[in-house]
Amino acid sequence: MARLVELLQEFMAGGKRIRPVFAVLGWQAAGGMSDMAAVIRVAASLEMFHAFALIHDDVMDGSDTRRGRPTMHRRFAGDGDDDRTERYGMSAAVLLGDLAFTWSDCLLHTAGLTSEQASAVVPLINDMRTEVMLGQYLDLRATGELTDDVDATLTVNRYKTAKYTIERPLHIGAAIAGADASTLAACTAFALPLGEAFQLRDDLLGVYGDVRDTGKSRLDDLRAGKNTTLVALALRHGDATHKDRLRTLVGDPALDESGAEEVRTIFAATGARDAVERMIDDRYRLALRALADSPFTPDAVTALEHLATTATRRNA
Amino acid sequence: MARLVELLQEFMAGGKRIRPVFAVLGWQAAGGMSDMAAVIRVAASLEMFHAFALIHDDVMDGSDTRRGRPTMHRRFAGDGDDDRTERYGMSAAVLLGDLAFTWSDCLLHTAGLTSEQASAVVPLINDMRTEVMLGQYLDLRATGELTDDVDATLTVNRYKTAKYTIERPLHIGAAIAGADASTLAACTAFALPLGEAFQLRDDLLGVYGDVRDTGKSRLDDLRAGKNTTLVALALRHGDATHKDRLRTLVGDPALDESGAEEVRTIFAATGARDAVERMIDDRYRLALRALADSPFTPDAVTALEHLATTATRRNA
Repeated sequence: MARLVELLQEFMAGGKRIRPVFAVLGWQAAGGMSDMAAVIRVAASLEMFHAFALIHDDVMDGSDTRRGRPTMHRRFAGDGDDDRTERYGMSAAVLLGDLAFTWSDCLLHTAGLTSEQASAVVPLINDMRTEVMLGQYLDLRATGELTDDVDATLTVNRYKTAKYTIERPLHIGAAIAGADASTLAACTAFALPLGEAFQLRDDLLGVYGDVRDTGKSRLDDLRAGKNTTLVALALRHGDATHKDRLRTLVGDPALDESGAEEVRTIFAATGARDAVERMIDDRYRLALRALADSPFTPDAVTALEHLATTATRRNA
Repeated sequence: MARLVELLQEFMAGGKRIRPVFAVLGWQAAGGMSDMAAVIRVAASLEMFHAFALIHDDVMDGSDTRRGRPTMHRRFAGDGDDDRTERYGMSAAVLLGDLAFTWSDCLLHTAGLTSEQASAVVPLINDMRTEVMLGQYLDLRATGELTDDVDATLTVNRYKTAKYTIERPLHIGAAIAGADASTLAACTAFALPLGEAFQLRDDLLGVYGDVRDTGKSRLDDLRAGKNTTLVALALRHGDATHKDRLRTLVGDPALDESGAEEVRTIFAATGARDAVERMIDDRYRLALRALADSPFTPDAVTALEHLATTATRRNA
C-alpha cells in the first residue's frame, strides 16, 4: 500500500496541472467568489483522474517513458524483461490506475459541494469520463491502421483532448460557480478550437520535441503507429513512395532515430508539418475570438488568453 | 460505442448477482421499507462495478474464459494471436473495464439517494473499492511466488472476497435503510466468516470444479500460480517431494490436465483438500451463529441463512 501511494505521489508530482487550472479559471470566468475551497478540491480530483488516465494510456500504448521517467508499468516490472515480469508490471500499473480513479472519486465526494453544485457538476464529470474513454477507444482502433482520413483524426482529438482537457474542466469549474447555459456555451466556443490546437501541438511535439523538454521519447508515437492528423495529412498529400515509406515506418516497434528522421523528411516534403502549424494557428485565433465574445470576468479572460498562447506555442 | 455496450451487456448477463442480492438483504436486515428503488439502483451500481473488477482481473491473470465464454480481452483480440492483436485485446478490455467503472458511478449518482443516505453510503463504497484493489494488489504480488503462509492467503481472501463480496454490500444496503453501528457490526460478524468460506469454496472449485458448472477452466488458477489457501496448506504439510512438484507444476503456464491431476493427488495426500473443507465448515457455522445473535429482521435472517448454505455448498 505504502509503495503504491509513493509511486502515485511521485507520478503526480511531474504533472502540468492543466485540467485543474482550467477548472479554477472556469469557476473564475463564471464569477466564482466564495467557494474557492470546493473548486480546488474538485480540481484536485480531476488531476487524480488524469493520473489514472495516463497510467492506463501508457499501458495500452506500451510507452516506456512519461514525464521524463519510466512509465508505471516499467517501474513495477523493474529490471526484468521476461514475460512474467512484463505481465506483473502491466497488471500492477492497471491496478494503480484503478486506485487513482477510486481516489479521484473520494476527492470529489469530500469536496464539500452543496447539493445544487453536486447535481450540476457530477453529470459533467461522468460525461467527461465517458468521453475521454470513448476517445481512447477510437484512438486504439485507429492505431496501427493508418488512414488519410484527416476528419477522423480530428474527431479522436476532440473527444480525447479538446473536451477532456479544456472544455469539461472549464464547464466543471463554471458549474461550481452556478454558470448558466450561455456561459457554458461560451466555454465550449473557446475550449474546442483551443483543445484541438493543443493536441495538434502535442502531435508535433511527439515527433519533433526534445525529450529534455517533453519528458517522453519522440519515437513512442511513431513506433506505436499513432494515426495523428500529421500522419493523415502526409498520407493524403504524399506521392506513392511517401505513402509506402510511411506505412512501413510508422507503427514499426523497432523504429530508430534514422527511420524517424526519414518520417520527418516526408512530413516536410508533403507539407503536412506546415499544414498542422496553420491548423494550430487558425484554431488559436478562433479561440481568442470566442474569448473576446464571451461573458467571462475580465481577470479570467486575461488568464485564458495567456493559457491559449502557452498551450499552442509550448515546447513541452 | 455500440460494440462496447453490447459486449458489456453480454458479459453482465452471465453474472450471479451476489453483491446486489447482499445489498438488498442488508437493506432488508436493517428494516428497510420505503426506499426499495434506491437500494435496487445502488445494487445495480455494485454489479456494474463488479463487471469492471472482473474484466480487469481477467486481463491481469491472463484468463481465457469467464462465465463459460471467452474473456473480454480474448473477445477483442478475436482470432489473431500475434503481439499486436494481443495488445489490442488487452487494451480494449482495460478500457471496457474503465467504462464499466465510470458507469457504475453514473448508476450510483442517479440512484435517488437522499443526502443523508448518500453521506452514509458513498464512503462505504469508496472503502469497498479501495479494499478490493488492495486485495488484488496483494494477490498479484503473491502470484507466482508460492509460500506456505496460510495466514497471508487468508488476508488476501478477506480483502479481495469477504469484505468486497459480502460485508460491504450488506453494509451499503443497511446504510440505505439507516442502520446504526450495532447493525453494521452484526453484518460484519456474519459476513467475514461467510465470505472467507465463499472464497475457500471458490479455491476448491478452481481446481476441482466442472467447467460446465463454473464457466471457467479448472487449469487457470493453477497455471496462473495462484497462491490459494489450498496451495499454502499443501506446501506446509507436504514432504520434500510434494513441495518440489507443487513448485514445478503450480504456475506453469503450459500445465495440462495430467499435471493438474498430479496437483490434485498432492492436495489429497497432504490433507490440504480436507483441511479446506473443514475451514469452510467452521466458518459456515460461525456465520450462522452470528446471524442468530443479530438484530436483523426475521425475513432477512431466513434469506441470509439460505444464502450462507448455497454460497458454501455450491458447485458453480
